Amino acid sequence: MNNTVGFIGLGLMGKPMALNLLKAGFSLVVHSRSQAPVDAVVAAGAQKAVSPADVAGRARRIITMLPDSGDVEQVLEGPDGLFSALQPGTIIIDTSSIDPGVARRLATAADARGAKMLDAPVSGGEIGAIGGTLSIMVGGDPDAFAEAKPILDAMGNPDKVIRIGESGSGQICKVCNQMVLGATIAVVGEAFALATKAGVDPAKVRDALLGGFAASRVLEVHGERILTSNYTPGFRAALFGKDMRIAAATLTEQHVPAPVSSVVQELVGSLLERGRGELDYSALATVLFDLAGVDALR
Amino acid sequence: MNNTVGFIGLGLMGKPMALNLLKAGFSLVVHSRSQAPVDAVVAAGAQKAVSPADVAGRARRIITMLPDSGDVEQVLEGPDGLFSALQPGTIIIDTSSIDPGVARRLATAADARGAKMLDAPVSGGEIGAIGGTLSIMVGGDPDAFAEAKPILDAMGNPDKVIRIGESGSGQICKVCNQMVLGATIAVVGEAFALATKAGVDPAKVRDALLGGFAASRVLEVHGERILTSNYTPGFRAALFGKDMRIAAATLTEQHVPAPVSSVVQELVGSLLERGRGELDYSALATVLFDLAGVDALR
Repeated sequence: MNNTVGFIGLGLMGKPMALNLLKAGFSLVVHSRSQAPVDAVVAAGAQKAVSPADVAGRARRIITMLPDSGDVEQVLEGPDGLFSALQPGTIIIDTSSIDPGVARRLATAADARGAKMLDAPVSGGEIGAIGGTLSIMVGGDPDAFAEAKPILDAMGNPDKVIRIGESGSGQICKVCNQMVLGATIAVVGEAFALATKAGVDPAKVRDALLGGFAASRVLEVHGERILTSNYTPGFRAALFGKDMRIAAATLTEQHVPAPVSSVVQELVGSLLERGRGELDYSALATVLFDLAGVDALR
Repeated sequence: MNNTVGFIGLGLMGKPMALNLLKAGFSLVVHSRSQAPVDAVVAAGAQKAVSPADVAGRARRIITMLPDSGDVEQVLEGPDGLFSALQPGTIIIDTSSIDPGVARRLATAADARGAKMLDAPVSGGEIGAIGGTLSIMVGGDPDAFAEAKPILDAMGNPDKVIRIGESGSGQICKVCNQMVLGATIAVVGEAFALATKAGVDPAKVRDALLGGFAASRVLEVHGERILTSNYTPGFRAALFGKDMRIAAATLTEQHVPAPVSSVVQELVGSLLERGRGELDYSALATVLFDLAGVDALR
């Protein structure tokens, strides 16, 4: 019983994360809105629960991996939600990327029920979820983190499972992560657009920049995608749009003017407006190519 | 005689680059406006010339390392300039960061005199110049590049001495490099400002981000500078301001709207307006800290 881990939300990310927990030897009780991934994970050895409340009754370590703040609120506080059947001492580990303020509020609500909630958003996309190499940025109680660490280590790279600070700080860190990613992809798009317009091979520019201070994982990984117009996700632009909306709300709430991130948010909005939400988020560069009238890279 | 290399412009970058050429066994004839670095390089084995024209008469491989487009025009086309005494077959290697259009024009002018000019701007700062580990982005004639390669290799990392394309493409690549650097530093500043305002340790955020797709050399090297407010250059913000002005002019000339780089250029302008031009260019982050009212990181 104590070794049983609950898992709610078996989407693109959640399903491979759950499978990695099974592989690491954890007993799993799962719940998800779609039946197909539940069947797949049950076939791999998990037990099936009928509701979040059912999960709460059968596990005291519970992972959630859901699309947005409202989904997490619903699974915790809604009818048949986790809170309706929570056992004292339970640790809820929310690996979703949600509003830091909502994460803090839910952690306080969990405290009031004699439980703990960690915010533990991940980075690394579907590839990281499948390979068990995710970075995990954790906010919340240090003892709860210590207890959750072996579970998180089974889904991520143990060296990259980092406690950032108090409740909400994992989500703040994720916002920082997405801000940096968005700006870097956008400026790489601008640079490739300039090179192309000026008759210079952007692939050569990428090579040269990777050798100096402008080097980044974005230039390496997403730069390659952009040069080959390979926008199969990866991480869907629509979800990145959600992340940038959370970033904008958080920046406003914390009274942090962020001129670069504001522009990036507008560019991501333009990407979605152009109907490219199902592409990989590195397709953000195509908005810059459109602006510059660069057809070669589209 | 054929092994003699001319070197004009012994500033913060030029002087260590010239010393590395001497160390690699090249005979050097040098000219610079300031006397002190000339004396230092002569003491290390170089010969002294009285003018650029004097250099042109004594060397057929000539490096220039000057602050801005106008300085390069003056040294090539001015009274007692290189062009006034240029030997046929001479290769001028301009390692300055200047306007790509000026670089193209001067290369055409060199062609008309039976000589070649390569644009070969560098990246890596004073540390790279001293260590001989610069990245060098080269535009111009392929044969001239092949002849110049051993000279460039003595000043940079041979793997990072890359021919990008025709004349001007080295400077276009440098513009791309500076655009990416500026946006990355600015967004790291925004992220650290957000973290600090939200009560989260920005050093932890840096650690976490370095483990994922948001990782970059900027976050690693400049992120460390920003966290410790260590703004001893390095590379002076005033020179970065010049680079961003070249970027803006080039983007306009090529009809490339670049919303992120435009914002970055404004932020760099604000940095200089605040009297911080003598700091390292990573001090760009302090403009974001000012905007957000974050004192802790200044």
